Amino acid sequence: MIAGKVFDLAQPLFAGMPHFPTHPPFARTLTKAHGEQVLVNGASSAAELITMGGHVGTHIDALSHFSCDGKLHGGVAPVQSYSDGVTTLGVDTVAPIFRRGVLFDVARLMGVDALPLDYVITPEHLEDCGVTPKAGDVALIRTGWGKFWDHSSRFITGDGGSVVRGPGPKKAGAQWLSKHGIFAAGSDTVAFEHVPSHMEVHVHLLVERGIHIIECLNLESLSEAGVKEFQFIALPLKIRGGTGSPIRPVAVVE
Amino acid sequence: MIAGKVFDLAQPLFAGMPHFPTHPPFARTLTKAHGEQVLVNGASSAAELITMGGHVGTHIDALSHFSCDGKLHGGVAPVQSYSDGVTTLGVDTVAPIFRRGVLFDVARLMGVDALPLDYVITPEHLEDCGVTPKAGDVALIRTGWGKFWDHSSRFITGDGGSVVRGPGPKKAGAQWLSKHGIFAAGSDTVAFEHVPSHMEVHVHLLVERGIHIIECLNLESLSEAGVKEFQFIALPLKIRGGTGSPIRPVAVVE
Amino acid sequence: MIAGKVFDLAQPLFAGMPHFPTHPPFARTLTKAHGEQVLVNGASSAAELITMGGHVGTHIDALSHFSCDGKLHGGVAPVQSYSDGVTTLGVDTVAPIFRRGVLFDVARLMGVDALPLDYVITPEHLEDCGVTPKAGDVALIRTGWGKFWDHSSRFITGDGGSVVRGPGPKKAGAQWLSKHGIFAAGSDTVAFEHVPSHMEVHVHLLVERGIHIIECLNLESLSEAGVKEFQFIALPLKIRGGTGSPIRPVAVVE
Amino acid sequence: MIAGKVFDLAQPLFAGMPHFPTHPPFARTLTKAHGEQVLVNGASSAAELITMGGHVGTHIDALSHFSCDGKLHGGVAPVQSYSDGVTTLGVDTVAPIFRRGVLFDVARLMGVDALPLDYVITPEHLEDCGVTPKAGDVALIRTGWGKFWDHSSRFITGDGGSVVRGPGPKKAGAQWLSKHGIFAAGSDTVAFEHVPSHMEVHVHLLVERGIHIIECLNLESLSEAGVKEFQFIALPLKIRGGTGSPIRPVAVVE
Repeated sequence: MIAGKVFDLAQPLFAGMPHFPTHPPFARTLTKAHGEQVLVNGASSAAELITMGGHVGTHIDALSHFSCDGKLHGGVAPVQSYSDGVTTLGVDTVAPIFRRGVLFDVARLMGVDALPLDYVITPEHLEDCGVTPKAGDVALIRTGWGKFWDHSSRFITGDGGSVVRGPGPKKAGAQWLSKHGIFAAGSDTVAFEHVPSHMEVHVHLLVERGIHIIECLNLESLSEAGVKEFQFIALPLKIRGGTGSPIRPVAVVE
Repeated sequence: MIAGKVFDLAQPLFAGMPHFPTHPPFARTLTKAHGEQVLVNGASSAAELITMGGHVGTHIDALSHFSCDGKLHGGVAPVQSYSDGVTTLGVDTVAPIFRRGVLFDVARLMGVDALPLDYVITPEHLEDCGVTPKAGDVALIRTGWGKFWDHSSRFITGDGGSVVRGPGPKKAGAQWLSKHGIFAAGSDTVAFEHVPSHMEVHVHLLVERGIHIIECLNLESLSEAGVKEFQFIALPLKIRGGTGSPIRPVAVVE
Repeated sequence: MIAGKVFDLAQPLFAGMPHFPTHPPFARTLTKAHGEQVLVNGASSAAELITMGGHVGTHIDALSHFSCDGKLHGGVAPVQSYSDGVTTLGVDTVAPIFRRGVLFDVARLMGVDALPLDYVITPEHLEDCGVTPKAGDVALIRTGWGKFWDHSSRFITGDGGSVVRGPGPKKAGAQWLSKHGIFAAGSDTVAFEHVPSHMEVHVHLLVERGIHIIECLNLESLSEAGVKEFQFIALPLKIRGGTGSPIRPVAVVE
Repeated sequence: MIAGKVFDLAQPLFAGMPHFPTHPPFARTLTKAHGEQVLVNGASSAAELITMGGHVGTHIDALSHFSCDGKLHGGVAPVQSYSDGVTTLGVDTVAPIFRRGVLFDVARLMGVDALPLDYVITPEHLEDCGVTPKAGDVALIRTGWGKFWDHSSRFITGDGGSVVRGPGPKKAGAQWLSKHGIFAAGSDTVAFEHVPSHMEVHVHLLVERGIHIIECLNLESLSEAGVKEFQFIALPLKIRGGTGSPIRPVAVVE
């Protein structure tokens, strides 16, 4: 049985929360409210309709999310349709995730609350964080941007213009991670990689190396507690043909 | 660290899967397909829009889902609006679930693949299953109906008419469960309780006793393995004001 | 050119408005708000995501909406899938509607603001309204329930229980209409026909006679003006495989 | 009564159809299929759930869609929220549209099937089309791109890269139109204006002049028939706080 402290790594879902502009936002309406329909015994219920993009909120990318030169990871051409999604390497094929996690707290390393807008996270930063990922690990990078979740334009663009911008690794940082054979890389930003970009980091991790990406994490409590190693647990929804899934990941420290 | 066998208790999500008629179905469309928009380096991505009810697919009910005589569990009046949902006792207040789980395999007890349409699960059935729930446990009931997931009308109505029908406990069975002080009760059916009903079981568990309900589980592999006790893990999405959330629960046997 | 007074026959669309319980409600969220993303020239935009059932709000039923004994109107078996809809007799095949309209103002005939909950509209009521439909007409029935649009439970159930209830014609009334060879029949209620029912009127009109049904109209201003004959215009969205479409119909009186 | 030929100016709605990348795509799933739930009299029905952006498919922009320096048309600051939309100058305030329409068939003028990718439509082009808009008119511009509707990447980007590109007027062309005092300007493209841009044309028309914009029209049949003047009819859905609405506009030639 799990024993120890559980850190909740998910951001809350609500209308108006940040979303990458080309991914549909989170929407919700009640389908009925308490008191609208009341049974003879006084029972009543409320329920809702939810709409969102597959890459909105704290979520994991399936390997089917990116291709390069027409090929997914492993050189496979995607089988896809608008109604069935991408049925190759879909998120429904991702097993429940129980893995060692490590935190690269780059914001703390640099002594800042949050990394600047255009800050590039380098292999040297990762080296200096004092943790070493092992094969199969989940490696999380903290920029401090998780605390901007309630301020959408700050989280998405740094609060200026209409271009998605934010700190993160470029290809060199991604290669440092991938050479350790990790299972997934995550961050507390919307794009994981330094953006704007040509999505080289997504291509490197998802397509070239078969490494999942997790975005929009909340790593604040983990950082405050000074935790660098933990058990990482996430249970992606089995969306057939999904290219991503919302998750509520946790870190467990025994 | 978790060690042991992980049983996946979630049903897959796809268009056309079963849903309670008053809860909106699962819908998905790609927002873009691979190859539609290609960057200069050959990178391309696919992503999707998803729509679903908060009580569709394998999911957990927040205590805010039901009221009786205008009150939620604890005698609290719900604060609610169509846009913000029910902000009292919402699913975003449910902590990550790591609890002991027990399986009441009633179908196996009765020696059938699946219980008949109008079968009532009694306290005696639960007594005879050979497991005793403890305070704080998650108690799961298997009817065998999980195997009908790919046959929507069979799963929802027993394949006749337009009324939701299926086996499950009535209030006596629910009271047997609740007296053990469990945290949540679940089943492999769409309504947990024997339906049609006046939702007495929902009122008893959610409103009177503050016990969550989990529906649309897939308990087949757990039954095949003869597992009766396990660690139950589920991580509900933090939907602010949500009355329910899709989950992908697992059972871990050490 | 159209000359004359235009009466707007549509109800507004908003979260929390009435909807038949098995049809998903209207939901909306902004995808971005003014000021969130601002271009260098000061330009900013707001836009939204919308979700709704095909039979929600003021809408028209395609002939594909109902079948009987497995057959649509004309004895055709429906070609259908969850992703493509019903591609036989879909709403995308309905031409822009420019037809003579007639109003059967039964509430006014009976001298009431709104017909009672379980009121049956008979052929005699229709005879007594002082208008005669011609072949190809759109025949609208006013019950007075349109004024309950801002009170969802009143509009859907008459404000009691969870069963959809309301006034309207039974089969005899529908037959009186269909014998005149009308193109469509409409009302200011959610179900057109007297409900609860076995949907005999829907089967008679849509399946047996190929007559469209229009629901959730707002006929109050037309009634106040004492208009009984008008040009009816409606322009259904061309949803491929749609079984219905939201419309904003108008009556033009020259 | 309307007499004459009706030209349908709407594109069909289907999953996979073109959409501006930051506006959510059209999605649909059946909520139930014929035969899934059958009443005792053999009656069965099919219906659907629909999701789409407010600026997807053939649609009209409300004046609330764009702001400049924080102000909508008339210098009004937008009142807005994610759940209620923009309740200032919303699409629900747009009256049913019955106006004179004129077609600027620039593709025909230039003797091409479709204007090139980066073609700028100038005041001179509009002068040469042989029609003059009057105050209150709806002025439609044909580029020939309507025929690409079934080929999403061609329609959105000209089939290269990920940037929305297409022919259209720049500010000079928009000013030529606005000086005639038109009610709305439309085109058979996704952005109306020449893109990429800083949306100067949207700002000029919607914000500075209070002129609506209509996009994604199908003007092919009108062009083939050589029609330059017509009655334009469109009936926007009354979405409270909506910044746009899908429409099915028609041109009537008497």
